[in-house]
Amino acid sequence: MDAIDLRHHLNTLSLSRSPSPLKDIINYMTIDGMLSLAGGLPHPSLFPFVNLEADVYAPTVDLNSDTRELVHLTVHRDDKNQGQVVDLAGILQYTQVMGNSWLLQFTHEFMRTVFQPGYGNYETLLNEGNTDGWNKVVSLLCESGDCIIIEKYTYSSAQALWIPMGCKGVPIDMDEEGMRADALEDVLQQWDVKRPGEKRPHVLYTVPTGQNPTGCAMSARRKQDIYSICVKYDIIIVEDDPYYFLQFEEYRRGRNRSATPPKYDEPTFLRSLERTFLSFDTQGRVIRLDTFSKTLAPGNRLGWFTCNPLFAERLLRGAEVTTQAPSGWSQAIIAELLRSWGPGISGYLRWLSSLIKQYEVRRDWMCDAIADAFDVEKGTDGEGLVAYSQGIKLFSFVPARAGMFLWCKMYLGEHRDYLEAKQNIREGEDSEAIFETRIWKELLEEKVLLTPGSYYTPWQGKDRKSIATSGREPDVVFFRLAFSMTTKEDVVPAIQRMAKALRLSWGIA
Amino acid sequence: MDAIDLRHHLNTLSLSRSPSPLKDIINYMTIDGMLSLAGGLPHPSLFPFVNLEADVYAPTVDLNSDTRELVHLTVHRDDKNQGQVVDLAGILQYTQVMGNSWLLQFTHEFMRTVFQPGYGNYETLLNEGNTDGWNKVVSLLCESGDCIIIEKYTYSSAQALWIPMGCKGVPIDMDEEGMRADALEDVLQQWDVKRPGEKRPHVLYTVPTGQNPTGCAMSARRKQDIYSICVKYDIIIVEDDPYYFLQFEEYRRGRNRSATPPKYDEPTFLRSLERTFLSFDTQGRVIRLDTFSKTLAPGNRLGWFTCNPLFAERLLRGAEVTTQAPSGWSQAIIAELLRSWGPGISGYLRWLSSLIKQYEVRRDWMCDAIADAFDVEKGTDGEGLVAYSQGIKLFSFVPARAGMFLWCKMYLGEHRDYLEAKQNIREGEDSEAIFETRIWKELLEEKVLLTPGSYYTPWQGKDRKSIATSGREPDVVFFRLAFSMTTKEDVVPAIQRMAKALRLSWGIA
Repeated sequence: MDAIDLRHHLNTLSLSRSPSPLKDIINYMTIDGMLSLAGGLPHPSLFPFVNLEADVYAPTVDLNSDTRELVHLTVHRDDKNQGQVVDLAGILQYTQVMGNSWLLQFTHEFMRTVFQPGYGNYETLLNEGNTDGWNKVVSLLCESGDCIIIEKYTYSSAQALWIPMGCKGVPIDMDEEGMRADALEDVLQQWDVKRPGEKRPHVLYTVPTGQNPTGCAMSARRKQDIYSICVKYDIIIVEDDPYYFLQFEEYRRGRNRSATPPKYDEPTFLRSLERTFLSFDTQGRVIRLDTFSKTLAPGNRLGWFTCNPLFAERLLRGAEVTTQAPSGWSQAIIAELLRSWGPGISGYLRWLSSLIKQYEVRRDWMCDAIADAFDVEKGTDGEGLVAYSQGIKLFSFVPARAGMFLWCKMYLGEHRDYLEAKQNIREGEDSEAIFETRIWKELLEEKVLLTPGSYYTPWQGKDRKSIATSGREPDVVFFRLAFSMTTKEDVVPAIQRMAKALRLSWGIA
Repeated sequence: MDAIDLRHHLNTLSLSRSPSPLKDIINYMTIDGMLSLAGGLPHPSLFPFVNLEADVYAPTVDLNSDTRELVHLTVHRDDKNQGQVVDLAGILQYTQVMGNSWLLQFTHEFMRTVFQPGYGNYETLLNEGNTDGWNKVVSLLCESGDCIIIEKYTYSSAQALWIPMGCKGVPIDMDEEGMRADALEDVLQQWDVKRPGEKRPHVLYTVPTGQNPTGCAMSARRKQDIYSICVKYDIIIVEDDPYYFLQFEEYRRGRNRSATPPKYDEPTFLRSLERTFLSFDTQGRVIRLDTFSKTLAPGNRLGWFTCNPLFAERLLRGAEVTTQAPSGWSQAIIAELLRSWGPGISGYLRWLSSLIKQYEVRRDWMCDAIADAFDVEKGTDGEGLVAYSQGIKLFSFVPARAGMFLWCKMYLGEHRDYLEAKQNIREGEDSEAIFETRIWKELLEEKVLLTPGSYYTPWQGKDRKSIATSGREPDVVFFRLAFSMTTKEDVVPAIQRMAKALRLSWGIA
């Protein structure tokens, strides 16, 4: 089954792009015996680069060990049956903007095997990572004035793109599984009544796995429900999923991990991964963004779109006049790494299965440290765990099932200074905002740095900035805690400092 | 002397961009003793890349020899006084979007020494090459409906960007030095009379050296004149100069090149380079685009802006939400190459001086081949050389003083079929367009591929597409011949095939 026609979603800009006439010329260059004076390219014999070598970890590396098994990569200027998949001189020339053919084949096969898109004629197209990818998608679909459906808390850089373009966010309530399907349906159903004259959104942006900032992981069932609603209301889903391969087992306090991990088995690993929007997508209305940033390294600036052929062609037209192809060095190194890690996609999958455990352990360290520094109890539905101190409910958090973040919801209802300040608050000010800053500074005093939750507050337009006008919950503030960068040695004192700062703030020290 | 305030040139989009609040947080991370849970970064110990090595040519390499002296580059994961300028793990992390500090210092020093900007507080900022750079500049300055001043023939990919954005080109007549200053002044002076109600252009886009497609090189005097006009009319100059380091000596037919090139001397080399718009820029109204694409390799996708601090800051805000930093691999390899080629900028300059000669020879091969295949005579002012066959004036061209292209102007005035076709041309059609295609196909029949000049026709809006409405010259067509990719063995038969095809077309075979 192929994608349906979704051309009506393209914006004026992307509909107006023409293929470069020069691209036609390229077809004639390869005619036998043709002498070409057409291509204005630098001569590859004058590139000063002769070869490239790199040592990389083996895909079977033991990341818990200090001695790590290495693989040696080499990329030469020409492919004389040396087994390499890229020719260095070729990849350093102006190349096809969609990306190196071997990498396109790899990503296509990877999507087929791991994600099983719900329609047949999906395509992949390289980009410079998901930030670049999201920019290209907005340039493909959105017009100034558009409303974009987003999660109640959303990735700040993603909205920093579209706010200056004159778009507005439509935040949808979340629970521990992320965006709520019923809340989405409500907003869409009542759109014309509640927002008369405003164009109904046709783009939904979501980070379904290990959402930034909340760390939520969306279930397959939830994705299916949201997908059905998007079919009903003709909405394009942008599945920005950089943390997809950081899916963890459920948190159990003080889990003892055996030194020898269970034997790796590819089918088992694949089954352990949650289904994606793409897998439910029978119509081609999902644009999926995947990246090597979290799984290999961000500096690669390399990711890829998976989408229907029409969108892929228009994304390519956009890339031709902006970024062109991703860095040849990044493409060469990643291609050769993936090839040497083979066979096929197996080496990369093996690597991902090891990587997951490293971040899972980091999640556990942080959750254990919180359980040690506070009185932690299971909360009510959707609250996750609640941290108390001397009987006062300080914050709750859901031990992340994916990604890099814990999202702490702090309850100001028993904070004496807050309650007093709230009485005297001036018109147009939010006492929550004032106390978020105050608590952030109090944490800083104790030398522990968190990210204030307000950084992730969706932009709904100038008239919907305060708690009252935006519909946000009163008497709470949020902080994002990243566990990805901490060692066990760091995370324990960091959480202890947090505990001390909060107790001082609440006056229960 | 510092740049003047040019804020009024920024468009709504770039004025609306806010710095990410997360950027502030970074400053706190470095406080002594701080434990940070703020940065949502992957852990660098989990990047599978251990080190990187490459063999590259020495800057003193003899490019005419088959044995080329090599330098070995190594980039390690940490800088234990190994002399390297980047730490591999650091450059593969999320890094500062403006680019690696060492590369910024290098480019800043390079601009100071080679280009001598006319004001003091210029800044440099890395980008993903000039196509990306121009896209970011248009996103900085232009609104839909804007008119952009361009050369009479212009780089097709540059305008493929702004046509869908609703901008229009204002082509300015050219002579052998490129854009004419008097023609520019005329257009601007008469703007309100000739185009009442239309907003006067505030952006001028030029490829001053080895212009694509015409190969023109602008003199210092011409740049100074155009700069003065731009001051008078408050216009921002975008100096897109990828071919700047391919400036050649004047063409002399059948020049004998001695096997041993003259001894290299840096001050002499620097004096041989033409002054740039940037060097005349006392106000900060030039945005200069430089790139490693033509001088090292396009696949690096690495270039840089030089501009005033206000523009640099806004360009950075734009990059943060789109491309982010250029590829870490590209940055690592280029930085280590330039460092090892030192001291300072000297090694790179030495390399450039060798590279110039390689393209100069290629220019000579092509011009010599034309002189051999046609009867070539000096033309009238601005015509350059004229190629005749059996007394019929077929085409003229200026032997390029820079870049990669010859621009052939073909005269259809003595082409019998053309003259006949012109009598019977239908309303709204151009016989020139029809014959451009016909001649292009006739060339193809003889197995030589050129680029049709119409690819470089500026877009002035829907109502200015034909020769009559656009003000283009009648009874001529153009073809672009690239000499950069040909060997001597190829270029001679290619030009002979061209001669045969043209004689057949004109009926003089």
